[in-house]
Amino acid sequence: MDKPATIKDVAELARVHAATASRALNPQTRDKVSPRTAARIVEAARTLGYSPNSAARSLRTRTSSVVGVVIPDLRNPVFPPIVRGVEDALREAGYLALLGNTDGDAERERDLLTTMRGQQLAGFILATSRRDTLPPLGPDVSVVLVNRRTEAGDIASVVPDSGAGVRAVVNLLVERGHRRIAHLAGPQDTSTGVERHRAFLDGLAAHGLSPVGVVVSAAFTEQAGYEAAQELLAGSAAVTAIVAGNDMIALGCYRALEERGLRCPEDVSVTGFNDMPFLDKQRPALTTVRIPHYDIGYEAARLLLERIANPGAPAKRVVLPVQLITRDSVTSPASPA
Amino acid sequence: MDKPATIKDVAELARVHAATASRALNPQTRDKVSPRTAARIVEAARTLGYSPNSAARSLRTRTSSVVGVVIPDLRNPVFPPIVRGVEDALREAGYLALLGNTDGDAERERDLLTTMRGQQLAGFILATSRRDTLPPLGPDVSVVLVNRRTEAGDIASVVPDSGAGVRAVVNLLVERGHRRIAHLAGPQDTSTGVERHRAFLDGLAAHGLSPVGVVVSAAFTEQAGYEAAQELLAGSAAVTAIVAGNDMIALGCYRALEERGLRCPEDVSVTGFNDMPFLDKQRPALTTVRIPHYDIGYEAARLLLERIANPGAPAKRVVLPVQLITRDSVTSPASPA
Repeated sequence: MDKPATIKDVAELARVHAATASRALNPQTRDKVSPRTAARIVEAARTLGYSPNSAARSLRTRTSSVVGVVIPDLRNPVFPPIVRGVEDALREAGYLALLGNTDGDAERERDLLTTMRGQQLAGFILATSRRDTLPPLGPDVSVVLVNRRTEAGDIASVVPDSGAGVRAVVNLLVERGHRRIAHLAGPQDTSTGVERHRAFLDGLAAHGLSPVGVVVSAAFTEQAGYEAAQELLAGSAAVTAIVAGNDMIALGCYRALEERGLRCPEDVSVTGFNDMPFLDKQRPALTTVRIPHYDIGYEAARLLLERIANPGAPAKRVVLPVQLITRDSVTSPASPA
Repeated sequence: MDKPATIKDVAELARVHAATASRALNPQTRDKVSPRTAARIVEAARTLGYSPNSAARSLRTRTSSVVGVVIPDLRNPVFPPIVRGVEDALREAGYLALLGNTDGDAERERDLLTTMRGQQLAGFILATSRRDTLPPLGPDVSVVLVNRRTEAGDIASVVPDSGAGVRAVVNLLVERGHRRIAHLAGPQDTSTGVERHRAFLDGLAAHGLSPVGVVVSAAFTEQAGYEAAQELLAGSAAVTAIVAGNDMIALGCYRALEERGLRCPEDVSVTGFNDMPFLDKQRPALTTVRIPHYDIGYEAARLLLERIANPGAPAKRVVLPVQLITRDSVTSPASPA
């Protein structure tokens, strides 16, 4: 094989000093070179197949151009478009994404973060945060929380507007004539679980109503939603509408209703949260709250890059707007109360 | 802050030499230490919050414990469980996954691989391979292809049995009385597209039948499948069953049928390939071929770890069995030919 191209070869082809070439090829110092010169250097590097030795650079600068992205489980359909948004924003800045799943398990998360820290990462994007604890990363690490936030400290985050979304769902149900409305809440150690539960109670109270039942689902999964729905339906036979903490819980609820011989929406209306892909093709098509998945990921990565460039800046908390998506799973109750 | 723990601190707590501790904490040399001793050292490292400086190790060994995982688009539901399988197998061996999307674009792929190579990765898992080209990585790099293979050279791969899957689909349709069967093929620069097309023709020929139409979809996406189905339906009015190259193409086909006022399955039966998640809840529930997504990813990572440990070994080509999943999108034709 040919000897690999060096930074000197790149500098020569681009007619600049080696130091300038090096700055232009490092995402963290690229803005010190004029955009036109930087473009010429990047082109020269591409022509020569030059690959910067990031391990050496990482050792010298004590950091890398790799970001850790930690989520509960990629198989939950809410995460792929978020991770794709993260990756696109990182790539535009010359960064790469190291991906890990935790299954929401605190020990698995700790092990993963320890392994990732060994890579001298530039920062972390975490979708696994619990409401009352800080991520086990130390104050010197750049972190942005995505789709979750914490009350335990001052950490940057990008989340959808859970409150506005659930209030819109409750308003829709009340307009359609529902008065006996229950909630299958998400886990109460997550910000999303708590905020949606609060918004559910506030939304009902604004119409002078109280819930006919609230059951907390053990996880944001179809199986946990199924179990929570069984418990709810065994206790509150009079329910005409169920507000689920997310789409997966709503799908579990579909299964529990079917097993009890109840039809959705004729006997019980159901709503979700997230508008995960392909929900429009479910039976019945689920009424839900659309969150801007891709934008949430993209914004989180932009925010992390800001924090890496300026670690002392105040931690922003970004809330993105949501949209009520009305489909077939909601109708008026058979006998309005 | 406290001074970070060193390898000497870990060795002291675990009562071993520093060299032994170092070997136990490096996934590539862990098997040189007895499992009990290794477990004690890992426990000591965890207690002390010790984080091995992988950047330094990477520079010394000219490799890292990070693997590049390159896919077309994480938002195609076939990939999340594959990537999850990859990540689980890597994690068990102390490796991490660096994830990138290419949108099937050759230039984006080349740029991504160049950036990743700068990280001194241990190897690559690629789901983006074209049938007739080698990945642009050079012969010194450990590579495993996942869900795709190439005819251009001797590269390890893990794929589902496309041929057996499509033949099972064709047999089902013929058994139900279909004789006017068409194919919406996947892109013919991919191994999956070509192998499924061949199996379709072979399957029909085994029953003495010829296709009433074959249209090649520009991509494995719903939109491309929709456009290919429009073209097929404009040309072959007599079709009673359509074998789609994958589930996404089948969903596009649903949309094209609906627009022409044709019912599935009463007027036209449709089949897919992959059994991506939540298909059982589609309308109508799609008859398809289930591939072992997670296992494909897990096997590919195991195969890559084998190749990293033993780069000179022959490149295995692993084919995993598939399963016909019969749902509502197939019925007998209204007027059997």
